[in-house]
Amino acid sequence: MKSVSSVHAVIVTIGDELLIGQTIDTNSAWLARELNKIGIWVSRRVAVADDSDAIRKALDEESRNANLIIMTGGLGPTADDITKPFLCQYFNGRMIINEEVLAHVKQIFEKRNRPFLERNLKQAEVPDVCQVLFNEIGTAPGMWFEQDGKVYISLPGVPFEMEHIMEHVGLPRISEQFNTPAIAHRTVITAGMGESFIAERLVDFEAELPAYGSLAYLPGLGMVKLRLTLSGIDHDAINNEADRLFEILKNKVSDIAVTDTDEGIEVVLGRMLKERGLTLGLAESCTAGNIAAAVTSVPGSSAWFNGSVVSYAYEVKAKVLQVPQEVLDRTGAVSEETVYYMASNARTLLDTDIALSVSGILGPDGGTPDKPVGTVWMAVADANRVVTKKFNFHYKREQNTKMAVYAGLDFIRRFMLGLV
Amino acid sequence: MKSVSSVHAVIVTIGDELLIGQTIDTNSAWLARELNKIGIWVSRRVAVADDSDAIRKALDEESRNANLIIMTGGLGPTADDITKPFLCQYFNGRMIINEEVLAHVKQIFEKRNRPFLERNLKQAEVPDVCQVLFNEIGTAPGMWFEQDGKVYISLPGVPFEMEHIMEHVGLPRISEQFNTPAIAHRTVITAGMGESFIAERLVDFEAELPAYGSLAYLPGLGMVKLRLTLSGIDHDAINNEADRLFEILKNKVSDIAVTDTDEGIEVVLGRMLKERGLTLGLAESCTAGNIAAAVTSVPGSSAWFNGSVVSYAYEVKAKVLQVPQEVLDRTGAVSEETVYYMASNARTLLDTDIALSVSGILGPDGGTPDKPVGTVWMAVADANRVVTKKFNFHYKREQNTKMAVYAGLDFIRRFMLGLV
Repeated sequence: MKSVSSVHAVIVTIGDELLIGQTIDTNSAWLARELNKIGIWVSRRVAVADDSDAIRKALDEESRNANLIIMTGGLGPTADDITKPFLCQYFNGRMIINEEVLAHVKQIFEKRNRPFLERNLKQAEVPDVCQVLFNEIGTAPGMWFEQDGKVYISLPGVPFEMEHIMEHVGLPRISEQFNTPAIAHRTVITAGMGESFIAERLVDFEAELPAYGSLAYLPGLGMVKLRLTLSGIDHDAINNEADRLFEILKNKVSDIAVTDTDEGIEVVLGRMLKERGLTLGLAESCTAGNIAAAVTSVPGSSAWFNGSVVSYAYEVKAKVLQVPQEVLDRTGAVSEETVYYMASNARTLLDTDIALSVSGILGPDGGTPDKPVGTVWMAVADANRVVTKKFNFHYKREQNTKMAVYAGLDFIRRFMLGLV
Repeated sequence: MKSVSSVHAVIVTIGDELLIGQTIDTNSAWLARELNKIGIWVSRRVAVADDSDAIRKALDEESRNANLIIMTGGLGPTADDITKPFLCQYFNGRMIINEEVLAHVKQIFEKRNRPFLERNLKQAEVPDVCQVLFNEIGTAPGMWFEQDGKVYISLPGVPFEMEHIMEHVGLPRISEQFNTPAIAHRTVITAGMGESFIAERLVDFEAELPAYGSLAYLPGLGMVKLRLTLSGIDHDAINNEADRLFEILKNKVSDIAVTDTDEGIEVVLGRMLKERGLTLGLAESCTAGNIAAAVTSVPGSSAWFNGSVVSYAYEVKAKVLQVPQEVLDRTGAVSEETVYYMASNARTLLDTDIALSVSGILGPDGGTPDKPVGTVWMAVADANRVVTKKFNFHYKREQNTKMAVYAGLDFIRRFMLGLV
């Protein structure tokens, strides 16, 4: 039953840990993304402390302009988690034991071989004025309240529990309850050109966008994401117009485009390797496993990824990767010759079709006048050729690492396409 | 000059990308943490769109209860970045070119070998009613506004630029301008016991805390962080009481404590290795470089970390790590015997004092009735002994990976302490 004609959604995250910065809020981004897919825009996000007055103020204020209020956090079994009793009072309910939740919580404790304590009983209590959003994989149930035509959803703060509840119960139910507008997103990811240069190129494109369309620039480390968004009433019309405009956009950035889907470069690369039936190996010095971690985050990567030799120490480059001692002595660990041998020999050692090697200085220490912090050499090798390239990154260690990972994966991609 | 007696801080993040979930807001956590260190609590965080009305509403509302409003985002050179012109209007100023910023922006373009475009001039414009918080490492200047005794700070959304400006200019200036209360945090990190069991143990401790003190439970993947916080006026008194209470707390969790500092386990382990003059090597299958990436995030890790053999493929375990083919055939890649050989042989191959090996099934696929998803075998070896251990993780791939990384590092720590 579609009881409300349009949705105005806000997210309220609850927890002291968010306000002293010990936890990064990934829940809001996930929720916003998933809501967006079903045509719901989140207009605001508010984070407040584990404090009744702060939660009350947030709910009072946000419900003035929103009719879908999604809360996360504050549902744990400890004394600082006050959200459940607070909501019970806020919606004039009383606490009751939910037998289904109780059986489930007891079963979880049994499965994990842990005694069920008196205080865990509380985890099976819910206000009698809510409908339970059953938490199949954790002990804190989600709750759905309705008041004055508005929906309030309370979810646990543990990300994968929150996601599981929303995927299986929350989002389907929101779709049922609300009429949602049509939204079309199209994303192209570029590498190798700065935001303002791309913007310069796209001045005319942006000027000609219809009023119900927009283009956003989302710069990351080593890449810029361009997101085209159209919204309206007719799902098909919006999508057709988005497709038409997206073709124009893609043509304008074809030389720097990595992919026309909102996906990581590791996914793009994995697909290319799989399609061509090729395998990949790595020899990582400064990136120290970060490239291997990135490629293995792709489901099914074992079909095309053999492994990485993380040769952090000089000696591992010589002994395991067989970089000639003479080369290491003469040119150092960060040099064109060293990465040449690292890539060639890793390819043989790991029995792969292609290998990438990386050696550099990511900071904060280790820079020299010749090789300042940010200097990174890479090589890609296959059976026929080895291509080397020098990169210069200008940021701090953590950012330089991420840029090197992106650049390394893009280097393999460009090598496979014959662009280098 | 301390012009305001106490600080009520809020963070306002600006950007469509935060509301559709394409960007995770790490800036708020960083800001909250750094403000906390100088005794300032953030009472709320609000995220709004790149939209004048939404920003105005947020500033109007938040300034009612706060006297320090920190904004991030929306300062880029593209059309969707409207924060700067909006603030100029909000504070009744007019835009002027700041010559110092202009020279700096031009210099950055020159250094990166990129032409300075007309639109980049805008990056050197600032409202004449603000004081510039100079951005040494980027093109978007920070801005400091004052109105009706309140301070409004606008910062770029790029995390390392925002952090650099705050570290060098923003935070010192906030400390000068405001009187801040004394806050003492003490953190102990535990592993191997669930949140509610720890809470059960600490019932009496929590009951006896003074009114100006609190204990927070911050569960992560594989660990629970316990944070004791006291606040008051007298810096020394607060800290002495925090020390006294923290000793009691530490005694109550001594068997599960990893560290009594708010730091990662990789930092704890690195310190132990360094102090003992020992080196570490890894043989990673399912964690695929994630443990190497974690240990090399520690500054100076090259002193004690040699490298990792990421043996994702069966063949790499046999060929590079010399796991006997017979063992692989008989017991499979995920077995006690396999990780035994992986750790022993990695130690020899990488020439280290200690080696950890990891092989398991993190999901979503690859599970069998015997070895369900989440089954992970690990081994730690030194010159004298090899200890093996089987772990069972119950979550999704990403969480299982993080739990395996934490468990692996804690396994090495416990091995070194003779606890396993």
